[in-house]
Amino acid sequence: MTATPSESPVAPFCERLEAQMHATDSLVCVGLDPDIERLPNHLRSRPDAILQFNRAIIDATCDMVCAYKPQIAHYAAVGAEDQLQDTIRYIRERAPNVAVILDSKRGDIGSTAEKYAREAFERYGADAVTVNPYLGYDSVAPFLAHTDKGVIVLCKTSNAGSGEFQELQVNGRKLYQIVAEHVAHQWNEHGNCLLVVGATYPEELAEVRQRTGDMIFLVPGIGAQGGDVDLAVSHGMRADGGGLIINSSRGILYAGSDGQFATAARAATDELRLAINCARTSKS
Amino acid sequence: MTATPSESPVAPFCERLEAQMHATDSLVCVGLDPDIERLPNHLRSRPDAILQFNRAIIDATCDMVCAYKPQIAHYAAVGAEDQLQDTIRYIRERAPNVAVILDSKRGDIGSTAEKYAREAFERYGADAVTVNPYLGYDSVAPFLAHTDKGVIVLCKTSNAGSGEFQELQVNGRKLYQIVAEHVAHQWNEHGNCLLVVGATYPEELAEVRQRTGDMIFLVPGIGAQGGDVDLAVSHGMRADGGGLIINSSRGILYAGSDGQFATAARAATDELRLAINCARTSKS
Repeated sequence: MTATPSESPVAPFCERLEAQMHATDSLVCVGLDPDIERLPNHLRSRPDAILQFNRAIIDATCDMVCAYKPQIAHYAAVGAEDQLQDTIRYIRERAPNVAVILDSKRGDIGSTAEKYAREAFERYGADAVTVNPYLGYDSVAPFLAHTDKGVIVLCKTSNAGSGEFQELQVNGRKLYQIVAEHVAHQWNEHGNCLLVVGATYPEELAEVRQRTGDMIFLVPGIGAQGGDVDLAVSHGMRADGGGLIINSSRGILYAGSDGQFATAARAATDELRLAINCARTSKS
Repeated sequence: MTATPSESPVAPFCERLEAQMHATDSLVCVGLDPDIERLPNHLRSRPDAILQFNRAIIDATCDMVCAYKPQIAHYAAVGAEDQLQDTIRYIRERAPNVAVILDSKRGDIGSTAEKYAREAFERYGADAVTVNPYLGYDSVAPFLAHTDKGVIVLCKTSNAGSGEFQELQVNGRKLYQIVAEHVAHQWNEHGNCLLVVGATYPEELAEVRQRTGDMIFLVPGIGAQGGDVDLAVSHGMRADGGGLIINSSRGILYAGSDGQFATAARAATDELRLAINCARTSKS
C-alpha cells in the first residue's frame, strides 16, 4: 500500500502497520488470549497473573512481531479488564510501534456501536478492532469514522462451521464474498478497512484476495486450529509478499511449560516468522 | 409454550420468562443503557452514577416488566463493569423473577465463545444473552449448552441498514429467514433459543413468526428508533397473545428530566405495557 498524504498528526493504521511489518520483517501477530488454567504454575495464583504472563510474552516477542491481538473474552470472562488495559499500556511502553488489535468482534446498531468504538479506541486505546458485518454498514460506520484506526471486518472465519451462513449462495456469489466486496468497495472510503479470513480456508483466501486488491487480511487459524502457513501465505498474500497479519495465539503462548514459557514463546514466534517469510519468498 | 418436565433444579429460561410475563401481565423489557451525558444532574457527578440511576429505574418499574436488558457497551465504554454487576445483583434482590438479558451480541469461534458464555452466565449471572449468528452453529453451541439459559440470536435487526446482508436473497429466501429457520429447527434442541426481530420491520416480524412457530422474539426498536407498538404486536405475536419481549430503552430511561426521571420512567413503562396489551387484545 502506498502511503497517502494525511493532515492527521497520526499516520493511518494500515500505513503504521506496514511500516512495522517492514521494520521487523514480520507478518506475525501474537494473540494475547491468556487462559488462567494454562498459565505457568508460578504465576497462576498471583492476582495479576494475566498481566505478568502477558508482559513476559511481550518482552520475549516484541522485536519480531507486527501486532498483538488481545481477545477480549479472555479478560471479560474473569473480570480482568484492568489487566487488559495494563497490558496495552505495557505494549505502548515496550514496543510503541507494534499495532494493538482489540479482538472483540463487536456488532450493534449505530448508537450502541458508538459506545463500542469508545471502548476500543478511547478506553483501551487500541489501534484497530475486529467487527461483525451482520448488521450492515450503519453498524460499522461509528468505527470507520475513526479514520486513523483500523476496522477489521469478519469475512470468512476460521471455525469449522463458518460455512453455515458465510457460504450461502447469493446470485452466484457466496455471502462472505459479498461481504468482502462491500467492505472493499463501499465501506473503505477512508482506507481503514481490513478483513478477517481464516488460514483454515486457503482457497477462500485466494478468492477474497482476488476480489479486494491490496487490502490487508487478518488471518487467524494457524496452529491449534490447524491452518497451514504455506497454504495461507501462498493463497492470501499480495503480489508484493505482504498484505497479511498472521495470528497465532495458543501455539505461541503455550509453546513451553512453566519456567521456560517465555523462551519457548520466542522460539515459536521466530519459527512462525521464518515459515511465513520462506513461504513469501518462494511464492514471490 | 407448554412447560416441559426438567430434572434441572432451575426451570428453563423460556418457562421462567413466560411465568413472569403472566404474573405482571407485561411483555415490557426495559433496556438499561445508561448514558452518562443524559443522566439527571444530581447523579451525574457521583462515581456510581450509573448504578444509582439504574436502581431508581428498577425501583420504579420492576412490578410491571418481564425483563431488564442491560446493553453492555454502555458499561464497557466507561469501564463500569462493576456497576453492571451491581445492577444485576440489585435486580436479583429487588425483583428476583424478572429476567436479566445481557445484550452483548457476542459471536466468536467455539473456544472463545466458551469465555463469552462464562462472562454472561457466570460473571454477570444473566438469564439470557444476545448472540450474532454470522459464525454459525459451532460459535453459539457453548451458549446453548447452558440449557437453563436463554440464547437470543440476531435475526432481523432494527437498524435502517440491516437489509444490506440480512435481506440478501438465497434461493428465494432472505438471509434473515434462513437464520430464523436454522435457529428454530436445528439449533433449538434444548428449547432455549429466541430471536431478535426489530419492531421497525413489522412485515418481517410476521414472516419470522410464520417460520418459527411459538418461539419467543426479543423486539427492539420501539420508541427512539421509530418502531410502532401496534404493528409490532399485531404482526409478531403468537396466537395466544404472547411470544414477544418488547424492549424500550431511551423512551423509558429518559422519559422525564432530573428530579422526576423515575416517576416519568414508571409512567412510560405503564403506558407501553398498556399499549402492548391493547394491541394484544384487539388482535386476539
